[in-house]
Amino acid sequence: MTRTSLSIRFDGTLALLDQTALPDGEVWRDATDPDALVEAIRALRVRGAPAIGVAAALCLGGMAARGVPPAEIRREAARLRAARPTAVNLMWAMDRMVAALDAGRDLLAEALAVFDEDVACCDAMAGHGAALVEDGEGILTHCNTGGLATAGVGTALGVIRRAWESGKRVHVWVDETRPLLQGARLTAWELRTLGIPHTLVTDSMAAALMRAGRVQRVFVGADRIARNGDVANKIGTYGVAVAARFHGVPFHVVAPWSTVDLGCPDGAAIPIEERAADEVRGVVGPVTARWAPAAAPVWNPAFDVTPAALVTSLVLDTGVVAADGLPDVRR
Amino acid sequence: MTRTSLSIRFDGTLALLDQTALPDGEVWRDATDPDALVEAIRALRVRGAPAIGVAAALCLGGMAARGVPPAEIRREAARLRAARPTAVNLMWAMDRMVAALDAGRDLLAEALAVFDEDVACCDAMAGHGAALVEDGEGILTHCNTGGLATAGVGTALGVIRRAWESGKRVHVWVDETRPLLQGARLTAWELRTLGIPHTLVTDSMAAALMRAGRVQRVFVGADRIARNGDVANKIGTYGVAVAARFHGVPFHVVAPWSTVDLGCPDGAAIPIEERAADEVRGVVGPVTARWAPAAAPVWNPAFDVTPAALVTSLVLDTGVVAADGLPDVRR
Repeated sequence: MTRTSLSIRFDGTLALLDQTALPDGEVWRDATDPDALVEAIRALRVRGAPAIGVAAALCLGGMAARGVPPAEIRREAARLRAARPTAVNLMWAMDRMVAALDAGRDLLAEALAVFDEDVACCDAMAGHGAALVEDGEGILTHCNTGGLATAGVGTALGVIRRAWESGKRVHVWVDETRPLLQGARLTAWELRTLGIPHTLVTDSMAAALMRAGRVQRVFVGADRIARNGDVANKIGTYGVAVAARFHGVPFHVVAPWSTVDLGCPDGAAIPIEERAADEVRGVVGPVTARWAPAAAPVWNPAFDVTPAALVTSLVLDTGVVAADGLPDVRR
Repeated sequence: MTRTSLSIRFDGTLALLDQTALPDGEVWRDATDPDALVEAIRALRVRGAPAIGVAAALCLGGMAARGVPPAEIRREAARLRAARPTAVNLMWAMDRMVAALDAGRDLLAEALAVFDEDVACCDAMAGHGAALVEDGEGILTHCNTGGLATAGVGTALGVIRRAWESGKRVHVWVDETRPLLQGARLTAWELRTLGIPHTLVTDSMAAALMRAGRVQRVFVGADRIARNGDVANKIGTYGVAVAARFHGVPFHVVAPWSTVDLGCPDGAAIPIEERAADEVRGVVGPVTARWAPAAAPVWNPAFDVTPAALVTSLVLDTGVVAADGLPDVRR
């Protein structure tokens, strides 16, 4: 019953690689207790919508294996569900675990299946997306969507990895992804670990890169996809989509089917968390510092919404589909 | 013969407010010696194309007043001219001082005139630009273009200040302006000092702000404007221009005539400095830190070029003109 990924270790107890300590420190934190997991989710120690769902399922599976009573597991499932309201995968995973509980199924086996299915799901997305990539392309990505964000190879970064491993000579342009710097801290670290050629840029350089002809394709992940194909993803995604459209660069969103929320009609219905002002006044994480005036007023939305009209295609585990084609996808 | 501005103090000796120490520290550094001024320009202690030109002129004027021989002044003018190759104002100011030297004019008087003319020039731009602003507008700006960047009220920020002081209730959206964070460190400080309502955002939020309908106008400065109206300005300006065009938001470039280089046919002819990788791997300045992998490959151009087609108008001291109308401007 052991499962390991780049950022998750489970053997009944659950340990997570603390992503706020990367790229210089590799610190594993116990998250066997749901309190610790809630804290880890809120503090972005574990991040990436799929990884959060898998970790929460394993946490409940471990509790069941230790004989924790169903009523308590149910309570903890509800608390975990609320720890990150935009992460539909988390809700999906918690609903699935509660349904298994209701049906009297083995919660540990269910959680391991959630892990294994995520690995298989990543492999499916990677295969579909890598087929879109041509040899020699410059590929721009935003935020972190690889093996740190999922139990498998990842979503957008998994596609890039698969394209590279299949022999296509790509060059990856990594947006630093302010304010939390997931690109600079995590994606640059992952690409370096994988040996894939890459260059780090600030978010403000993406449009100039496209104008210079260095970007042939964009792959990003998604936190939630509405029924009409609107995509909520890390703040800054929308600006990349606008620049890509202006320069005629294909813009692909890579996400598992569990990210699609058919109950959500469009992007306007997706709640957008606002985060702490200090993240914008400086940097918060392993490095914490301030460079703006201490009382500077700040706007700090965690996500933005990219309208379906700017999305060239959605790369799902079920296949590649036009952004406005979701209601017709067979699954 | 005393002159003072927000960032320059001259009384024969020259002192500059070290802008790398803002917003928390107010540190004045002597730049009477041209070696110190070259260092200050290179390290961005003094920045903003007009302020650099004024400071360099005052430096030479002070040397002349101390009886430094003309040949040495000529040599130092050439060195100062090379300290920031994209700053056409610097070249213009040095050429003017050398011409005054050739003509046997008083270099101190010439330098004081350069200062005074910059103040008057800012006032002229501010008046022309403020007339474009309507009551209640949200205005986005990039980098720092105010009293720290010039001897007067500034260029883009001077326009905003004049609009506010004339009773128009504007709200300023301040791009942090990675990698050097002039918006977060300097513009947020200046607006706070002036009491003008503002909100700091990361560069990656500008497009989402526009989509949310919060931006009615963009004002930015320029480091150099080519004959065809292409504008070289702080990296990230181009991405803002693309987003503004996509959302139908007017995009104005505010700059003194001395920024216009009629000898430069278009943006492709403007050399773009690349700066140190560590600026993108983290932050360099009063706060210095790294969050990306230490050896992460980086692209770090100091400027980008916004094509004339994306510029709604150029707000010059001589008046407001269409970006493609420069060769016809009467001056």
